[in-house]
Amino acid sequence: MTSWVPSAAGSGFDVDHLPYGVFVPTGGTPVVGARIGDQVLDVAALSWAETASWTNILEAGTLNPLLAAGPAIWSAVREFLSVALTDESWRGRVERHLHRLADVQLRMPFQVADYVDFYASEHHATALGRIFRPDSEPLPANWKHLPLGYHGRAGTVVPSGTAVVRPCGQHKESNEQWPVFGPSRRLDVEAEVGFVVGPGSMLSQRLSVDDFAGQVFGVCLVNDWSARDIQSWEYVPLGPFLGKSFATSISHWVTPLVALADARVPPPARSVPLLPYLADDPAEPWGLDIVLTIEWNGSVVSHPPFASTYYTGAQLLAQLTANGACVRPGDLFASGTVSGPGERQAGSFIELSHAGRLPVVLNDGTVRNYLQDGDTVTIRASAPGTGGGHLRLGEVTGTVLPADDPATGSGALGGGRDR
Amino acid sequence: MTSWVPSAAGSGFDVDHLPYGVFVPTGGTPVVGARIGDQVLDVAALSWAETASWTNILEAGTLNPLLAAGPAIWSAVREFLSVALTDESWRGRVERHLHRLADVQLRMPFQVADYVDFYASEHHATALGRIFRPDSEPLPANWKHLPLGYHGRAGTVVPSGTAVVRPCGQHKESNEQWPVFGPSRRLDVEAEVGFVVGPGSMLSQRLSVDDFAGQVFGVCLVNDWSARDIQSWEYVPLGPFLGKSFATSISHWVTPLVALADARVPPPARSVPLLPYLADDPAEPWGLDIVLTIEWNGSVVSHPPFASTYYTGAQLLAQLTANGACVRPGDLFASGTVSGPGERQAGSFIELSHAGRLPVVLNDGTVRNYLQDGDTVTIRASAPGTGGGHLRLGEVTGTVLPADDPATGSGALGGGRDR
Repeated sequence: MTSWVPSAAGSGFDVDHLPYGVFVPTGGTPVVGARIGDQVLDVAALSWAETASWTNILEAGTLNPLLAAGPAIWSAVREFLSVALTDESWRGRVERHLHRLADVQLRMPFQVADYVDFYASEHHATALGRIFRPDSEPLPANWKHLPLGYHGRAGTVVPSGTAVVRPCGQHKESNEQWPVFGPSRRLDVEAEVGFVVGPGSMLSQRLSVDDFAGQVFGVCLVNDWSARDIQSWEYVPLGPFLGKSFATSISHWVTPLVALADARVPPPARSVPLLPYLADDPAEPWGLDIVLTIEWNGSVVSHPPFASTYYTGAQLLAQLTANGACVRPGDLFASGTVSGPGERQAGSFIELSHAGRLPVVLNDGTVRNYLQDGDTVTIRASAPGTGGGHLRLGEVTGTVLPADDPATGSGALGGGRDR
Repeated sequence: MTSWVPSAAGSGFDVDHLPYGVFVPTGGTPVVGARIGDQVLDVAALSWAETASWTNILEAGTLNPLLAAGPAIWSAVREFLSVALTDESWRGRVERHLHRLADVQLRMPFQVADYVDFYASEHHATALGRIFRPDSEPLPANWKHLPLGYHGRAGTVVPSGTAVVRPCGQHKESNEQWPVFGPSRRLDVEAEVGFVVGPGSMLSQRLSVDDFAGQVFGVCLVNDWSARDIQSWEYVPLGPFLGKSFATSISHWVTPLVALADARVPPPARSVPLLPYLADDPAEPWGLDIVLTIEWNGSVVSHPPFASTYYTGAQLLAQLTANGACVRPGDLFASGTVSGPGERQAGSFIELSHAGRLPVVLNDGTVRNYLQDGDTVTIRASAPGTGGGHLRLGEVTGTVLPADDPATGSGALGGGRDR
């Protein structure tokens, strides 16, 4: 299918992609949009103008009602947009609802209900095990039996572009006797793929791997900013907490799962048999051939391959609900850091810099181990599209601002800032 | 002050208490209420009838808008209710808005934004350390320096009275070679005190211990149901996850913090100096003399003293936001299991039964180590009231239902149930 939108072809945002987000037209209020080329289509306004039956679920200025509506509505809206953007006879009615991306503001695409972060990459878990627990086996004994995860802070998930203030916290280096409170000295990123939940489930209802496509609307990119010094001091025995909860950035655009149909690949071979509730279905593989790139101040420093992730999104959903926990529209569960086996495939700087010992050289000749104030990190990704080309997932970017002054307890920018 | 409501005096729900909740009058829709004796006052209807300025924030059928309104409004509403329920001249206009508790349904009092569970009781942390990590020091090295915590699942916080289906999950006993998937064999409770956040803060704004009274609306009782076998297999290195996330029960009633003014006591002595951001202010102590009781099938098995908790609610709030994480109206942060030093002061059954080795004998002669299907646990609490008597906090109760059949993956009660 060919779109009549001139910028669509070859952009990674062609009609086979159509990710959703929320934007603010000049002088307007937030509305649901779909990206096509360098344009964003006001899906709510077009649906209203064409008296589509789902118009009401697009009026909230957030994706949550669309997420809750479920796969039949998702398909109907996608088919409608596909026709509207490819059929030349619609062009006159549709063009008035297109806005140049450069002219609009993008907002948080959905309200996050619960946020769960997994630890699904074997290469990442092994690398971090070696760094944090050098005297133990790198992979914990449970790792090959179940996807490990933990709950993150939903209220600090922010959209791409939000500045990230360097967090303060307690940290204690091994050569220090007492912990100190102050700005993190080892601020890092984690490049991840996030799954956005649609209709949700009832309490005590276990979901299976087969429920994945009916429950998950789509994927976004995630940067789970991490303060390694705060994390290493606090994480025994209750896991990551303040080392993570200051900010988690997500892309503005949510790529529908159906747009990734041609990106599906078998997951890695299982070295330990999985219990039946996590078993792979070879006929319905949920590995995804998404290749991420991490740019540090404009230098591409890594290409983490999501296809190398040990556990699939379908297995993460089955694990998350194995105990009867319900999921809700707007739940976000992320893969955990995506790291491949190669030297330039790590999804975090603690791995890339070998825990700070081998600094990374950027294109401008500067060297880094962890993030410095003013640094900008942008995570991008591409995947095979159903039209034969490649999709580009919406990027997630953020710039580090200096820490607030811990002595005064007040914000450097006037006691806090809006998201 | 004496209320003209006959059942108020000596009930623990006198006019010095006035906890808030949400109830459904016969044939009506959910509304905000305040408890007085064995009655519940329709605060929304009375405010409307008296044309109070805050009427609009009571119309949502949940406490969240009242939480967001902040301390000035909280004081005004409380003063209004106090006059209405003590001044005999108001009686005629107020009585029509009173409902017998026995005639109404109680609902979830507020929508939980983020849920954080701490680990603030030294006696509990020591006891669990001995059980889970018998070869190490019972208290982790970081424990006396900062309140440890983790994020729980907001979407599975349920109101008192909700049945709790025994969760399934992976567990592996030390004498087993492989993990199995099935119903938890070590289902437990955790008796806790929860703090309910009011206005909230902005991202990157650190709150101090002095912000506690302005940010925290009140307290509720919490039962953080725990599957110890699932927990012990999964919790290294990312902390508790599915062993907790199947259900967390809270009381229907939220006791305003100001009603606990006479319950404030100094916290325990500090054996390690606290960093300045966590320092106690002797002039503003935030220990709370709340004594919990745990009833197991009607037998009182424990009296956990909250005053023995090492870290105060004010310190938990300061810790939670030390990295700039924002809080939102409806955030819930809980103390973690409240356990005192005594044999019958533990807040969990794994402690009471010495990890199952010394079963607890109930009044009917039955013995228990962990929960059996059909068991009911009720947590109550009392505290000194400002009127010289004692407040009774709203109870939190729940009954254990049998696990769903893990073989079929579908719910024994028809594939899930509503909350």
